[in-house]
Amino acid sequence: MSSTARARPLRVAAAQLGPIGRHESRAAVLRRLVALVEAAAAGGAALVVLPELALTSFFPRWVIDDPAEFEGFFEDAVPGPGTQPLFDAARRLGIGVHIGYAERAVIDGAVHHFNSSVLVDRSGEVIGRYRKVHLPGDREPRAGAAFQHLEKRCFETGDGGFRAWPALGGIVGMLICNDRRWPEAWRVLGLQGVELVLVGYNTPLHNPEAPGHDAHVKAQHRLVMQAGAYQNATWAVAVAKGGTEEGQALLADTLIVAPSGEIVAESRTEGDELVLADCDLELTGTYKSTIFDFAAHREPRAYGLIVERRGAGPPLQD
Amino acid sequence: MSSTARARPLRVAAAQLGPIGRHESRAAVLRRLVALVEAAAAGGAALVVLPELALTSFFPRWVIDDPAEFEGFFEDAVPGPGTQPLFDAARRLGIGVHIGYAERAVIDGAVHHFNSSVLVDRSGEVIGRYRKVHLPGDREPRAGAAFQHLEKRCFETGDGGFRAWPALGGIVGMLICNDRRWPEAWRVLGLQGVELVLVGYNTPLHNPEAPGHDAHVKAQHRLVMQAGAYQNATWAVAVAKGGTEEGQALLADTLIVAPSGEIVAESRTEGDELVLADCDLELTGTYKSTIFDFAAHREPRAYGLIVERRGAGPPLQD
Repeated sequence: MSSTARARPLRVAAAQLGPIGRHESRAAVLRRLVALVEAAAAGGAALVVLPELALTSFFPRWVIDDPAEFEGFFEDAVPGPGTQPLFDAARRLGIGVHIGYAERAVIDGAVHHFNSSVLVDRSGEVIGRYRKVHLPGDREPRAGAAFQHLEKRCFETGDGGFRAWPALGGIVGMLICNDRRWPEAWRVLGLQGVELVLVGYNTPLHNPEAPGHDAHVKAQHRLVMQAGAYQNATWAVAVAKGGTEEGQALLADTLIVAPSGEIVAESRTEGDELVLADCDLELTGTYKSTIFDFAAHREPRAYGLIVERRGAGPPLQD
Repeated sequence: MSSTARARPLRVAAAQLGPIGRHESRAAVLRRLVALVEAAAAGGAALVVLPELALTSFFPRWVIDDPAEFEGFFEDAVPGPGTQPLFDAARRLGIGVHIGYAERAVIDGAVHHFNSSVLVDRSGEVIGRYRKVHLPGDREPRAGAAFQHLEKRCFETGDGGFRAWPALGGIVGMLICNDRRWPEAWRVLGLQGVELVLVGYNTPLHNPEAPGHDAHVKAQHRLVMQAGAYQNATWAVAVAKGGTEEGQALLADTLIVAPSGEIVAESRTEGDELVLADCDLELTGTYKSTIFDFAAHREPRAYGLIVERRGAGPPLQD
């Protein structure tokens, strides 16, 4: 066990957002974000964690035929002109920021679209960027569905893999929404010594593809967050867009999870709400040095199928 | 969702065991096992699942200097002369059997020791064998500990990897105890289309290596079983040795978990007890064809570190 003398305390604020309307102005959204950043700083947090696509409505629920409207959901740069008030406030208050946004990137002269997040430290410096790897949903609209889930149509698969960075006195990684259901994503961060994983999400309560799963949405969200944290001996923050957004009900249930897998703080509402916890990053060591001492206990020779197969196949033969 | 017409029902009996004494006779243990097999068959089960090291006390808790006593805990063959009454009863009753045992194997003329399990079908035919890959604990005794956990001293790492087999109308895989904490183990089974994972365990309630974790033992056990089942869209059976065995308290908490991650049946005692559930193997398809359609959603290019690193290392560089 870590002694108090060795503690590496980090006060984290998970800033849950209520719904954002399809036509809500960027200025109105930024006012909400700045209010949360100010409240987080007033609460003594060193980091405020905003959710996936925190600047806009969750637009992959629609088929958007108008290119101007579609492109209007994207940012060319974050931090950038469209988000300056947010990062100005954070730097002034000396608080780090994590935020998810729709990214338009020009790579070798070609335009690409990603579901991205960025981590900025307390001085305003960009620590790391992440482009979502596990895009759920469909490329083509689903006939008869009240809402679509067109992430595979709106975004490309992130091209940078899973990364962790030294930041805020520890090692910090980012995942986005559906990534949290994939143990491979957590493990690649765990193998980089991650101590704090930040996960923003927009999770609908109803899945037209599998209505029978709806009753389990909240339990499965908690399950994967708690398992990811425990099995990689890391703190984890899951921060939601909640409430009913443009008629679609979203899971709120913002959580902060300890390396034991225990939930130490959670949201009480479905709207804009700050969830604070003091995370002692040193606690990760009590698991990383014992049951999850990877060097002592992992057996990669037995794991080959994880990279050799994409889809499930038949049982291995003798 | 699967319709009733397509259901593939399998009634499974998880046969929890209470303590087995260090000097308890094999005949006495077999009487207990046969009673559980008979009760499972009487309850209509197609498969009875016995725990890890179900024939003996959990002997890795001791430093055993007497080679004769140490070797006495091992079997040269299961099914075999030492377990004939168990498999005779199962074949007579037409019920499949999973059992964990300490295996002594002669390979290329050399003697090896494994922590193993075997799956036998309803006609008495051996379907598959598994040798535990993730051995927890120590090679050398821990000074001052009331109980040791010397699995790395007693056994070699399993040499056959993680396997699943067509059996009992589905695809069945086996893990043993500590394996259940490792998402890689589950995933290698998931990538073989597994629909039912059998996990026997002997989990002490007190961990001398990390006493601070003791309060979380039960929650973490449930967490990894539920996450492993959900993230691989499989039924899962966790079957315990429980009670106080030779002065050491063991976690009971035998569970049967659905592909949703929901616990559908669990033990109520710490002793010999049968936990029954009707598992519709077809339910795995509602997840395997949607959110966990691996071919549609996995991204192995981003998973390389899982096989490239054994232990955690520094964050990846740009």
